[in-house]
Amino acid sequence: MACDLVRAINRRTLVWALAVLPVASGAFVRPAKAQGSQGQPLASWNEGPAKQAILDFVRATTDQASPKFVPPEERIATFDQDGTLWVEHPMYTQVVYCLDRVPAVVAQKPELKDREPFKTVLSGNREAMAKLSLQDLEEILLATLTGMPVEVFNAEAKKWIETARHPRWNRLYTELTYQPMQEVLQYLRDNRFKTFIVTGGGQDFVRVYSQQVYGIPPEQVVGTASGVKYSYDENGKPFLTKEPKLLLNDNNAGKPEGIHLEIGRRPRAAFGNSTGDREMLEYTGAGDGARLMMLVLHDDAQREYAYGPARDLPESKVGTFTQALYDEAKKDGWTVISMKGDWKRIFAFD
Amino acid sequence: MACDLVRAINRRTLVWALAVLPVASGAFVRPAKAQGSQGQPLASWNEGPAKQAILDFVRATTDQASPKFVPPEERIATFDQDGTLWVEHPMYTQVVYCLDRVPAVVAQKPELKDREPFKTVLSGNREAMAKLSLQDLEEILLATLTGMPVEVFNAEAKKWIETARHPRWNRLYTELTYQPMQEVLQYLRDNRFKTFIVTGGGQDFVRVYSQQVYGIPPEQVVGTASGVKYSYDENGKPFLTKEPKLLLNDNNAGKPEGIHLEIGRRPRAAFGNSTGDREMLEYTGAGDGARLMMLVLHDDAQREYAYGPARDLPESKVGTFTQALYDEAKKDGWTVISMKGDWKRIFAFD
Repeated sequence: MACDLVRAINRRTLVWALAVLPVASGAFVRPAKAQGSQGQPLASWNEGPAKQAILDFVRATTDQASPKFVPPEERIATFDQDGTLWVEHPMYTQVVYCLDRVPAVVAQKPELKDREPFKTVLSGNREAMAKLSLQDLEEILLATLTGMPVEVFNAEAKKWIETARHPRWNRLYTELTYQPMQEVLQYLRDNRFKTFIVTGGGQDFVRVYSQQVYGIPPEQVVGTASGVKYSYDENGKPFLTKEPKLLLNDNNAGKPEGIHLEIGRRPRAAFGNSTGDREMLEYTGAGDGARLMMLVLHDDAQREYAYGPARDLPESKVGTFTQALYDEAKKDGWTVISMKGDWKRIFAFD
Repeated sequence: MACDLVRAINRRTLVWALAVLPVASGAFVRPAKAQGSQGQPLASWNEGPAKQAILDFVRATTDQASPKFVPPEERIATFDQDGTLWVEHPMYTQVVYCLDRVPAVVAQKPELKDREPFKTVLSGNREAMAKLSLQDLEEILLATLTGMPVEVFNAEAKKWIETARHPRWNRLYTELTYQPMQEVLQYLRDNRFKTFIVTGGGQDFVRVYSQQVYGIPPEQVVGTASGVKYSYDENGKPFLTKEPKLLLNDNNAGKPEGIHLEIGRRPRAAFGNSTGDREMLEYTGAGDGARLMMLVLHDDAQREYAYGPARDLPESKVGTFTQALYDEAKKDGWTVISMKGDWKRIFAFD
């Protein structure tokens, strides 16, 4: 899990991120709430082919008179998280969490204090941090995401997510979900779709806040997962420990594989924003009947970010929307969502 | 998956099973339907401590005035399948499926025809089949459960489960679910519990019929799981192949581990019948607030089977209800369900 999470991030990302990130989170406020629909569906969407594709799909699958009607129990919709439901720049939120956790981990294991890469992270020297290798980062992720009881991890992650802020907006990460996508989640649920997150990020991490932030319960979050180990404490009370053993790398082909493992049905609709979502969209599209495949294109540098080589945007630093992905979308009838053109507003606070 | 499924079955089981099983299934009829509640909850239960424990638990967790009230989204109940929701004797249904599939597998791969253990299974010689080693059985399970596209497996398993019959009752296996347990599932769902199957059997196998037989959708079935592999056919269409790689051995400690992986919450209620369910019940009981842990004791040789050394019953052949498990149940306040004493009827057709 740690390794793959790290491999998804290139060196440039790290350098850029460290240049703008505070090393530790500052003062904190209440978490954002998931936003429901506001009377009419998709209120934050401009009229256009993207909005129309969603409306047409829902009509085709829920109207009993439609030849493409889908029984409610088969209405499964899957959503990538980073870059699809919330901001992924300048760095995946979970990686920020791991860096922020280093001081606490070292406090528990003082022998790490003078060992690399922990020493460098503790120093706060961003120039030195930017030079950390991928192997160093792996070690940091392993130390901060595994080795503790599940309840301890959950409590730590919950505390962090309720307080940590994004450096650009100085807002909680949980406030940086895309309002138009929150409306899609709500609109699909209003039409008896079951909504799932299928993320390359850590399954346990996202489950901590998925209900509160997206209205998606933990059991409907599929993500990169490490194993857990069942054992007993000194009083004979059982507990589960997070192990440094990768069970599911929920990226690329791992997404349909994870969907099979934890959902067991092919989605009717799938939403992503990068090559890591390609196989999930292909797998969704390979089913018969009505299917909806959508990709969020980050082309709004002013209100969010613009990245991805498609349409002459600068090269991506985290999520990768390549020209090949863009071509596949066009060829296979996937709908590309332009943040700039299709979304009236990006965030609930806009 | 295959290996562990096999290891759960001792030699004696095999001998016994082969003595009574037809080698191939005979003529077939329509599948059984899941039975809902019948006006009043738990109609097939006799008054007594087991029924009362269920009623008390539901009242405590759903009455808003109760100090043990549980919000609906946290109402998770998990059920073992074999021996808890349906008959597991004389052999796990899925193992019967695997033996029944051997002729079809050999037809696809004629080179297996003269190779052991396939040759012996094809011979129909029960005496010889009873001598198959566990390694032989492993090979049969691997050959019949992996190596094919997911859709092909699903179609084959569906066809089989709609037609195969239990030798004792000459009824579909799907008719041999316990009516009182169907009522528990329905009663919990009526009270906004989400019901899950957590089975040592194959996750993909149980998902084929879980909705129809138990009203439980595929995404709420956790079981022993092999990996799948994403690839493309000659037309570029993607598909998933079942691989002979064990991802989750959903027995014993694997049950709470599987619950963490695919549900991500500790259950409020858990139902089992053997030592394979012990850790799931322990893990459930280790949470705070109201919890319900129940074990089905097979003590009714006349209407079903009687097995398990507890209470002087003959030694178990498949599910093992040991004296140690019985003692743990008493010590930890788990409720033992006597099929003979607590259930007015066993099956819907009784």
